[in-house]
Amino acid sequence: MANNVIVGQSGGPTAVINSSLAGVFKTAKDLGADKVYGMRHGIQGFLEKNIIDMSEKIRTELDLELLKRTPSAFLGSCRFKLPEIEADKALYDKIFDILNEYEISAFFYIGGNDSMDTIKKLSDYACVINSPIRFMGVPKTIDNDLAVTDHTPGFGSAAKYIASATKEIIRDGLVYDIKNVTVIEIMGRNAGWLTGAAALAKGEDCEGVDLIYLPELPFDVDDFIVKIGELLQKKNSIVVAVSEGIRTAEGEYVFELTNHTEYVDSFGHKQLSGTARYLATLISEKFGCKSRSIELSTLQRCAGHLTSRVDITEAFQVGGSAVRAAFDGETGKMIILKRVSSEPYICTTDIYDVHEIANIEKKVPLDWITEGGTNVSQQLVNYIKPLIQAELTPIMITGQPRHIVVDMEQ
Amino acid sequence: MANNVIVGQSGGPTAVINSSLAGVFKTAKDLGADKVYGMRHGIQGFLEKNIIDMSEKIRTELDLELLKRTPSAFLGSCRFKLPEIEADKALYDKIFDILNEYEISAFFYIGGNDSMDTIKKLSDYACVINSPIRFMGVPKTIDNDLAVTDHTPGFGSAAKYIASATKEIIRDGLVYDIKNVTVIEIMGRNAGWLTGAAALAKGEDCEGVDLIYLPELPFDVDDFIVKIGELLQKKNSIVVAVSEGIRTAEGEYVFELTNHTEYVDSFGHKQLSGTARYLATLISEKFGCKSRSIELSTLQRCAGHLTSRVDITEAFQVGGSAVRAAFDGETGKMIILKRVSSEPYICTTDIYDVHEIANIEKKVPLDWITEGGTNVSQQLVNYIKPLIQAELTPIMITGQPRHIVVDMEQ
Repeated sequence: MANNVIVGQSGGPTAVINSSLAGVFKTAKDLGADKVYGMRHGIQGFLEKNIIDMSEKIRTELDLELLKRTPSAFLGSCRFKLPEIEADKALYDKIFDILNEYEISAFFYIGGNDSMDTIKKLSDYACVINSPIRFMGVPKTIDNDLAVTDHTPGFGSAAKYIASATKEIIRDGLVYDIKNVTVIEIMGRNAGWLTGAAALAKGEDCEGVDLIYLPELPFDVDDFIVKIGELLQKKNSIVVAVSEGIRTAEGEYVFELTNHTEYVDSFGHKQLSGTARYLATLISEKFGCKSRSIELSTLQRCAGHLTSRVDITEAFQVGGSAVRAAFDGETGKMIILKRVSSEPYICTTDIYDVHEIANIEKKVPLDWITEGGTNVSQQLVNYIKPLIQAELTPIMITGQPRHIVVDMEQ
Repeated sequence: MANNVIVGQSGGPTAVINSSLAGVFKTAKDLGADKVYGMRHGIQGFLEKNIIDMSEKIRTELDLELLKRTPSAFLGSCRFKLPEIEADKALYDKIFDILNEYEISAFFYIGGNDSMDTIKKLSDYACVINSPIRFMGVPKTIDNDLAVTDHTPGFGSAAKYIASATKEIIRDGLVYDIKNVTVIEIMGRNAGWLTGAAALAKGEDCEGVDLIYLPELPFDVDDFIVKIGELLQKKNSIVVAVSEGIRTAEGEYVFELTNHTEYVDSFGHKQLSGTARYLATLISEKFGCKSRSIELSTLQRCAGHLTSRVDITEAFQVGGSAVRAAFDGETGKMIILKRVSSEPYICTTDIYDVHEIANIEKKVPLDWITEGGTNVSQQLVNYIKPLIQAELTPIMITGQPRHIVVDMEQ
C-alpha cells in the first residue's frame, strides 16, 4: 500500500500559512511519502473529493520559495466544524472511506481552534474504528489565541505589519502643526495580542502610541474621552490603538454604539468593524479637532510584502515537525512552539495532545495590561519582539511581490 | 553676504517627500551653499521664524539615507495658501524681511498645486521689489495631478503600494469557496491616477480587479449593482477598486448617499470616506452575499516600507535639479519630469514656468478609461508601470523600518 499523506488549510488566512504548507510538503517528500495530496477548501472540499496532487503544483525549488512568500491559503480554506461523532457517524465513515481510497497514512490540518477540533474528532474516530491513519494539527492564527503553544505562526508577521504600519501612521500624524487624533483599529475579537503589537512601534525613532485598548478589559467611553482631552492639552498629535472587539462594561461592542446597521452578512451576523470610526467621530464632536480612523483591515493577515523571517521559518518548521511526528507514529497531537529563551531568542517545537488545545482561547494575561487598561507592559513587548525579527525578502517581479500561481479552478 | 538657501515642505505627506528634501540638502551643500535652512511646517512656520539649520539634523551619510527612507514630511508641513499680493503686501514684505535676515539666496518649496502657487506669488513679488532671491518649486504629490510634468514624485510609491496591497487583497478573497465581494477605496478626490494603479495588480500570478471606478466619470449606482450581479453569476470572489471621490451624475459624492454625518472636522468640512463602506453594504443588502470594504487609507501615502526605487530616486533628482537651476539663476520655475522613453524607461528633469503649473489639476485622460467607465486602458498601465519599479531596501532595525529621528520640538 502506498504511503500517501494529505494536507489542508482551514480558518482565516495568514501571511505565512503557506510556509507551513511548504513545510509539510517538503518534509513529507524528504521523508519518503509517495504522494502529498492537498485538499481544496479544507475538510469541506475534502468531502467533495476536491483533492490535488501537490507535486503537480510545486515542481521546483523556486515554486517552494514562491509558496512560502504567498499570503492567503494556497489550497483555499473553509470555516467548517465537524459535528460530534455521535451526531453523524456516517459523515466520519465517509471521511475515512475517502482517506482509504487515496491510501492516506497521515492527515495534516493547518489552522486554529476550530481546526484543532477537527484533528481531535478525526483522531478520536480513528481510535474507535481502529484505523492506523494519523492526524496531526499544525498551528496557525494571526490572533495568537491557541493554548499551550508559546505563540502561533502567523502572529509574528501580523504583529510586524501592525507595528510598522503604526509607526508610519504616527509619523504621518506629526506632519501638521495642529491638534489631531488618529484611532487605529486592529483585529482580534476576544484576544488583544495583535492590538498589543502596536506598542512595538515605540522606539528610538518613534514615541509610540498614546493609548492602547485590548478586548480583555471593559472599555469606558467617558473615561476614554477624558484621557483624550488630557492628552490634547499636552501634545498635538495623538495616536490610539484599539481592538475591534472592545466592549463596554455592559458587554456591548463599541462599534454597536452607533445606530447604524451595516455589514450584516448572509447569516445575519453583524460584522465587527466601525469601532475606530465611532471613536474618531466622537472625538471630533467633543473637541472640534481633526480626527481620523484607520482600520488596518485585511492587510494585517495578508501583507506578504512584510513578513517576519522568524515567523515564516517557524511556520515552515511546525509543518515539517508535524510530518516527522506522524511518521514517528504520533496522532491526535498538535505541534507547539516552545520558547527555550527570550534573550537570546531560542525556540523549538514539541508535540502536545490536541484534546488540551482545541476550543480553548488564550488571552493576554491581565497583569500585562497596565495604566488602568490604557497600555501594555514591557513583558508583552518583550514577548512579541523576537517574533517580528528579520525579513524574508519578497521576490519582486516588475515592482510587485511575486506569488505562486493558483491554477486549480475546477 | 552668505550664500544660504532655505527649503520647506507643504501639503499632504508622501513616502518620498523626504527624498526630495535630501536632494535639495545634499546638492546645495555640494554646490557650495553656506547654510541650508529648513522651515518647519512650510511657509506658516517660516512666518514665525520656525527655522532650523539642516546640517544640525543631517550629519552623516547614514542620516541622509535614513531621511530618504522616512515617510511623511521631516520638516513638517502646512496647508496655507498665500493671499494675493494686492490683498496683503505687508505679509510679503515680512517674508522678504525674514529671507534677508537669514541671507537667503534661494528658496525651495516641495509640494503640489497650492505650493506651486506660493512659488509663483513669491517669485512675482521678488520681481516687483527687484529682489535677487530665487524661488524654485519641487513637485510632490501622491495624486499625480500636477500639470506639465510627466508624473509627480510620490505617485510611483503610492501606486506601488496600491498595486501590491490590491494583489494581496485579491489573493485573500480567493480563500473561501463562497461568493464574496471586496470594495477597495483609494485616495484621489478628483483625479483617478491612484485608483487606476489598482489595475497593475493584474499579472501572471493574479487575475486583477474586476471593476475600477475613477472620479473622472459619473458613477451610476444602479449600473454598478447590475454589473456586480453579472459577475456573481460567473465567479466567487469579486474585487472592485473605487476612488474615494466618485460622484453620481448629479454631482453628489457616493459616500454622501448614506445618511450618516460623520467626520465633520473643526471647519465643518465633511471628510471623504465611506464610499467603499456604502457600496459593500449595498451589495450585501442586494445579494445577501459576504462583502467587505477596505480603505487603503493613510498607508497609501506613508508606507515607507514599500517604496519604488524609481520614485525615490526621481524625488531626490527633482530636489537636486531645483538647486542646480536656482544656482544657475532660474526663478519662478518648477522642476518637471520629462519621459524620454517608456520602453526602456528613460526620464530626465527640466525646468518649467510655474505660472503654467500652479492651480491646474491634471486628470486621467477620458480615453484611458474603458468599458463604460469600469476599467482602464493598457496605456494607463504602461504609463504607471515604470514608476513602481524596483525597491529602496528599508533599513530594518529590530524588525521594523528605521526612520530618522525628529528632535526639533520647540
